[in-house]
Amino acid sequence: MSKTQPARGMRDFLPADVRKRNYVIGIIKEVYESYGFEPLETPAVENLETLTGKYGEEGNQLMFRILKRGEKLDVSQGEKGLSDLALRYDLTVPLARVVANYRNELPKFFKRYQIQPVWRADRPARGRFREFYQCDVDAIGSNSMMVEAELISAVSEILERLEFKDKPGYTRFVIRLNHRKILKAILDESGIKEFQHIEALTALDKLDKIGVEGVKKEFVARGLSEQSFESISDLFSRIDKRRFEVFHITDSSHVKRTDLSGWNRDSINEVRRMVSEHTEGNEALKEIESILGKFGENQCNIQFSPNLARGLSYYTGAIFEIDVGKEIGSLGGGGRYDGLIGMFGKEQIPACGFSLGLERILVVMDERGMFEKPIAEGKLKLDSADVMIAGFDEALVGECLKLAGELRQKGLRVLVYPEISQKGKPVKYAEQIGVPFVCLLKENELAAGNVTLKNMQTNEQETVAREDVSEKIKS
Amino acid sequence: MSKTQPARGMRDFLPADVRKRNYVIGIIKEVYESYGFEPLETPAVENLETLTGKYGEEGNQLMFRILKRGEKLDVSQGEKGLSDLALRYDLTVPLARVVANYRNELPKFFKRYQIQPVWRADRPARGRFREFYQCDVDAIGSNSMMVEAELISAVSEILERLEFKDKPGYTRFVIRLNHRKILKAILDESGIKEFQHIEALTALDKLDKIGVEGVKKEFVARGLSEQSFESISDLFSRIDKRRFEVFHITDSSHVKRTDLSGWNRDSINEVRRMVSEHTEGNEALKEIESILGKFGENQCNIQFSPNLARGLSYYTGAIFEIDVGKEIGSLGGGGRYDGLIGMFGKEQIPACGFSLGLERILVVMDERGMFEKPIAEGKLKLDSADVMIAGFDEALVGECLKLAGELRQKGLRVLVYPEISQKGKPVKYAEQIGVPFVCLLKENELAAGNVTLKNMQTNEQETVAREDVSEKIKS
Repeated sequence: MSKTQPARGMRDFLPADVRKRNYVIGIIKEVYESYGFEPLETPAVENLETLTGKYGEEGNQLMFRILKRGEKLDVSQGEKGLSDLALRYDLTVPLARVVANYRNELPKFFKRYQIQPVWRADRPARGRFREFYQCDVDAIGSNSMMVEAELISAVSEILERLEFKDKPGYTRFVIRLNHRKILKAILDESGIKEFQHIEALTALDKLDKIGVEGVKKEFVARGLSEQSFESISDLFSRIDKRRFEVFHITDSSHVKRTDLSGWNRDSINEVRRMVSEHTEGNEALKEIESILGKFGENQCNIQFSPNLARGLSYYTGAIFEIDVGKEIGSLGGGGRYDGLIGMFGKEQIPACGFSLGLERILVVMDERGMFEKPIAEGKLKLDSADVMIAGFDEALVGECLKLAGELRQKGLRVLVYPEISQKGKPVKYAEQIGVPFVCLLKENELAAGNVTLKNMQTNEQETVAREDVSEKIKS
Repeated sequence: MSKTQPARGMRDFLPADVRKRNYVIGIIKEVYESYGFEPLETPAVENLETLTGKYGEEGNQLMFRILKRGEKLDVSQGEKGLSDLALRYDLTVPLARVVANYRNELPKFFKRYQIQPVWRADRPARGRFREFYQCDVDAIGSNSMMVEAELISAVSEILERLEFKDKPGYTRFVIRLNHRKILKAILDESGIKEFQHIEALTALDKLDKIGVEGVKKEFVARGLSEQSFESISDLFSRIDKRRFEVFHITDSSHVKRTDLSGWNRDSINEVRRMVSEHTEGNEALKEIESILGKFGENQCNIQFSPNLARGLSYYTGAIFEIDVGKEIGSLGGGGRYDGLIGMFGKEQIPACGFSLGLERILVVMDERGMFEKPIAEGKLKLDSADVMIAGFDEALVGECLKLAGELRQKGLRVLVYPEISQKGKPVKYAEQIGVPFVCLLKENELAAGNVTLKNMQTNEQETVAREDVSEKIKS
């Protein structure tokens, strides 16, 4: 007898899980399609060469590698030579490969979305799995800040459709916005040398987790001066102190919307004072203002966050992240990466993207009861059928299947009880699996063109003309 | 510069490909849901132990194995000890694992569908890839032939919805039906010993490919008597001679439907004469009659095919396969497998399933122009947007995004040209990517509440009130 559990960190999705996931994915697709983003799919398996050197040391460790096949393995050199393929690690590197490979077939401005699983051999934890879905949207080929604005707008629309809203009892979301060159300017102006920027950002990225004192220790441990940290922490703590205030939406009937426009103006001014002599920093601030300016005041929940670092890998411009409160990490993020596609092709092609983490979204929606409304409204159905048909006689099987076909034609989801049995068993089964109606076929009734219809909620049953069954169920 | 091709035997799906695939998958899902089948998803990666010993020697060779991680590999023993995980090889073994693992959470009769990729390191060929989708539907927990009938009925409905139909110019499909115990009876009655059945079936399975003479040689090569083959080939060739006649649907205005009911009666009688003394064989024939009896005459394209062998692995009862003509292999198949789930659990649980091969269906539909109708009817959209908006002035960007939002609210798919440019460029781009309308925003028109709408098909352009844009496009 073999083990029956899925592999470590992987999950089976039973029907109710799949339906919830598909409900969320459906909304994500619908919104992206309405913005003119087009679907792309790439293989789960990539040449090892395509992936190596793109994700840093961590990526090399966490990647699932595939054993070579069809030849005698050369184990004499240890791990080298054992593997030529690996599982997809994210959706951005495959996109860059695709853009380079099909440059002549794709439009100049290629807007794509991609919703597929990726695999990382990470230590499993709450909301962290070894197989998880990314929902990526990227716009290739344009330098315009309209791209950033559209990505933020599309993601905001998705979150609002999922009921992340400024309403009592609901979960507000905020899109944090920063720019890699603003970070660079701040570090430059704090006297941190360029070769130490990655060290400094790695430390600053932990601000949420380990606090100001923790980051200060990290600075020293990484060979950075305590003094350089003072001016940064001064700026960040002043700007950051109101960060989570925007999430206090309780079940009071009145929702006070924190004025993000005012907050953003103040923060921009503060950063501008610090980087006023820094050309790149000033240009980056203008890009941030350009993005913000494309939304009306209070139209979007964007919060300028100069301390947002957003990983360290390939971003070159604006960066974003979705916050829904202190107790859970971000639901997604992204930014501009103008250098990645060039690693695969002759051309350097500008690009900007946003990635939603399906698993985190589902965890928050489950914990906060956010599926209740779509279930109540019938937009999300967790049950398997609208009606179950059962026949009491082997001779009626053909009639059962025929009636089932007729009801399906009328748009109902119809289950046929697979065995011939007396009344008790099918009704009990229908109760167990939660089907709202049972339709019973008996020889004598059928001769008169009738069937018995039982409402499982009210427990009432009545004799109904065969042609009226679908109407009865729908009403 | 890295290589930009996908890995060997794997494919990237550009937007038009994904849309076609999703159109077919959408119909498959819709029909399965209407039969009360519920969605299940399992991980791409399974414990090696779960998969080994389930697929025979070929499976062991073609499985993609994953290298162990996070520990020093022990290469001293060669390939052993290098791998603990493997990629999913089909959807049936994971289903059996899931049924055994969640027995108490799942209903007694569990009807599930599952549409996910599987991976096999096969030699790539036309319509054969190393990553491909299976669309499986299975009913667990019942011995009733109603299950077989429902599976055939659901699959037939899918093929009809995809326009595999008895109409001039269309591709007819036939569901071939046989029973593992009929095959066993025929072999027994031909004097082939039980231990040689697998050899005989392996040879007979090639009848389509290598013909009667080829199979005879195979028989001898596999140590079977030439004589034993004579009686089988006699039966099979009489029954099989009309097999492909049913596909001759030309573009004449009249379609003559081959009478499969008569054919099936004749074939059943012929087999019954041969196996009249064989208990199991007679029971199996009754099951076949029971399945056929659940469909009205000529209601379904079922063809009793006693020479259908359908692989050799886990089938125990009825087996089926979809035929659409000589020039391409089957589009899918399945059967009853009452022994597999017991390999994972304490209980032996009856099960029956049908698997559709997405790639084959797509190849046939593409080659035979079967996507043209859904495209013409607007059920399958290959373009990215209904309208593209372009602004001629940086100051109008906000207005572009606002109008885009309004049109999306009205159900349109709206692309915003991402750069500010004079008229020529955006219109040329819209022409390239095939957007049917372009909406141009100019300062002076907008002041009067108007925009310019250009119909890309007729090349006409007119000034339209902003609020009338969506109506104009929809009409």
